[in-house]
Amino acid sequence: MALTGKPTLAVVGATGAVGTVMLQILSQRADIWGEIRLIASPRSAGRKLAVRGTETEVTALSEDAFDGVGVALFDVPDEVAAVWAPVAAARGAVVVDNSGAFRMDPDVPLAVPEVNPHTVRSRPRGIVAGPGCTTLTMIVALGALHAEFGLRELVVSSYQAVSGAGRAGVETLRAQLSLVAGTELGTKPGDVRRAVGDGTGPFPEPVALNVVPWAGSLREDGWSSEEMEIRDESRKILGLPRLPVAVTCVRVPVVTTHSLTVHARFQREVGVDGAREILATAPGVVLCDDPEAGEFPTPADVVGTDPTWVGRVRRALDDPTALELFVCGDNLRKGSALNAVQIAELIAAEPPGRG
Amino acid sequence: MALTGKPTLAVVGATGAVGTVMLQILSQRADIWGEIRLIASPRSAGRKLAVRGTETEVTALSEDAFDGVGVALFDVPDEVAAVWAPVAAARGAVVVDNSGAFRMDPDVPLAVPEVNPHTVRSRPRGIVAGPGCTTLTMIVALGALHAEFGLRELVVSSYQAVSGAGRAGVETLRAQLSLVAGTELGTKPGDVRRAVGDGTGPFPEPVALNVVPWAGSLREDGWSSEEMEIRDESRKILGLPRLPVAVTCVRVPVVTTHSLTVHARFQREVGVDGAREILATAPGVVLCDDPEAGEFPTPADVVGTDPTWVGRVRRALDDPTALELFVCGDNLRKGSALNAVQIAELIAAEPPGRG
Repeated sequence: MALTGKPTLAVVGATGAVGTVMLQILSQRADIWGEIRLIASPRSAGRKLAVRGTETEVTALSEDAFDGVGVALFDVPDEVAAVWAPVAAARGAVVVDNSGAFRMDPDVPLAVPEVNPHTVRSRPRGIVAGPGCTTLTMIVALGALHAEFGLRELVVSSYQAVSGAGRAGVETLRAQLSLVAGTELGTKPGDVRRAVGDGTGPFPEPVALNVVPWAGSLREDGWSSEEMEIRDESRKILGLPRLPVAVTCVRVPVVTTHSLTVHARFQREVGVDGAREILATAPGVVLCDDPEAGEFPTPADVVGTDPTWVGRVRRALDDPTALELFVCGDNLRKGSALNAVQIAELIAAEPPGRG
Repeated sequence: MALTGKPTLAVVGATGAVGTVMLQILSQRADIWGEIRLIASPRSAGRKLAVRGTETEVTALSEDAFDGVGVALFDVPDEVAAVWAPVAAARGAVVVDNSGAFRMDPDVPLAVPEVNPHTVRSRPRGIVAGPGCTTLTMIVALGALHAEFGLRELVVSSYQAVSGAGRAGVETLRAQLSLVAGTELGTKPGDVRRAVGDGTGPFPEPVALNVVPWAGSLREDGWSSEEMEIRDESRKILGLPRLPVAVTCVRVPVVTTHSLTVHARFQREVGVDGAREILATAPGVVLCDDPEAGEFPTPADVVGTDPTWVGRVRRALDDPTALELFVCGDNLRKGSALNAVQIAELIAAEPPGRG
């Protein structure tokens, strides 16, 4: 991208749950952008949204909408991104895509600025992908530990917030909570299910007073798409194509902020003090780990913040090469919107004359 | 115990959360007992509780209360059990203790009837212990798999219900839910904490709209007592004193029924069909595993039932010797009351002339 003056940024999917957070984040960060153009489906065109304190009209998605755009942030469904990201790239924009459409494309870098910023520069399709929100919950902390100790294996369990399933997920939990609060439900088989009726929204089971071991769609051999993606994305981002990764995804009644337990095995012995020091100084990571003082991260405190929060750092009792971690991250911020904005900023900072 | 006629059963802690469930279970199972004597602290003495359809007066805990008792079920705090279980044993009762006071005593068997029923017979102190509710959530299923494949390593993450922290845990969650239902809370840092104020009860953080990575008290090197106990108890029950076990315990806003994700590595290659067959036929286990039909266990359906429910059975993608499981069990039934009753039934069924 040959930059002369401040580049134009397009936000595609500006009216969605993540798009809304993107606009908030763009209003909070250093103002490196010229025009910020808001793009959404034709039915949202004409709406006005505030960005950097200015009411801005939403433009309908079209080829012409990308004219003059330097960087286009996409947060739209996979099938929309699959069609429109190449269109935007053909018009000269560098696309930063949050969907799953291009993440595993060998010609598309999968970027997390704190972990693999160099990958952004090689983008033969003009597209850079951001990973899914669950991978992003842990990958910044793991990247820092991997750089020091060399990662050898991951066993991960998720505690995923309902906003990972979009606005419908949040509405479903809110509606269910209103039905179960003030009752004695949760003590007899099926009583919560009967109370919420068919109101399970995007979830296969009630999510209030419950946990649901499922996220995504069914892949082969009983695995869910989300579990496979966390494995695939972690391997690509860390540059470890054969890393063993075992994941079980579970939805919990939390609005926003994913949590993960991580059992991470390394190439060599790990000291818990050394691990804590790495985490305490790694960019984008906050160490919150003093159980004696009741200090560990929880979604209620992490929501709305930018970093990856890490607590409960322990060395495995039976394996001096393994660490146990509990990690929290806001799935709408670093988990989606913030990571994309950071990638866009990396691209905008490239020396002129490129591309 | 020389059995002539039906033995007398004492329930010590009859008015507690688990004691209440014990009385329900005793009313549901085969009626092998003569007298059922209800024992509790002096302040509960004189209350009347229903068991087997009969109103029964609660007796105050005393030495004499154990006269003529064949088996005494204890569900009381550790420090009460430490004093009173030996008293009951000295009076001739076989004690089945649910507390943590004797679990790791080498002269006390730690029993799960489906897994190690033979251990109950050797009880030099006259005491048999039952494991904690989190261990019991998984151990029946793991025992069955271990018998076939030989267990080599466990990595476990818990999704623990608030009733594991007793009645106060349930009351805390109910009160918090009433404060957060119908609101937009859960989207800003600390907003849930401000809403619940000091009302976190037995938990160090709010548990509504949150998950809290802590259960028990602090042990060395950042581990919690509950995490250590799951390791110690699993090793003792399975007879694998050096089994590597890595656990992270997390509290979730569920009333009753613990869930666990389990990464279990075995001595030899495991087939997912073979594992499913073992789980489908193991006593005390229900296989609930058809994600295509939306079938996997969740607390909302498992609560109030007796078995261990297992779903999401997958072979690890990168290790043919490892399985991934999602396991649910009612922490008040099999996790506490039922396991103790089953042990008592084993003891009552011993041939006369023993002890």
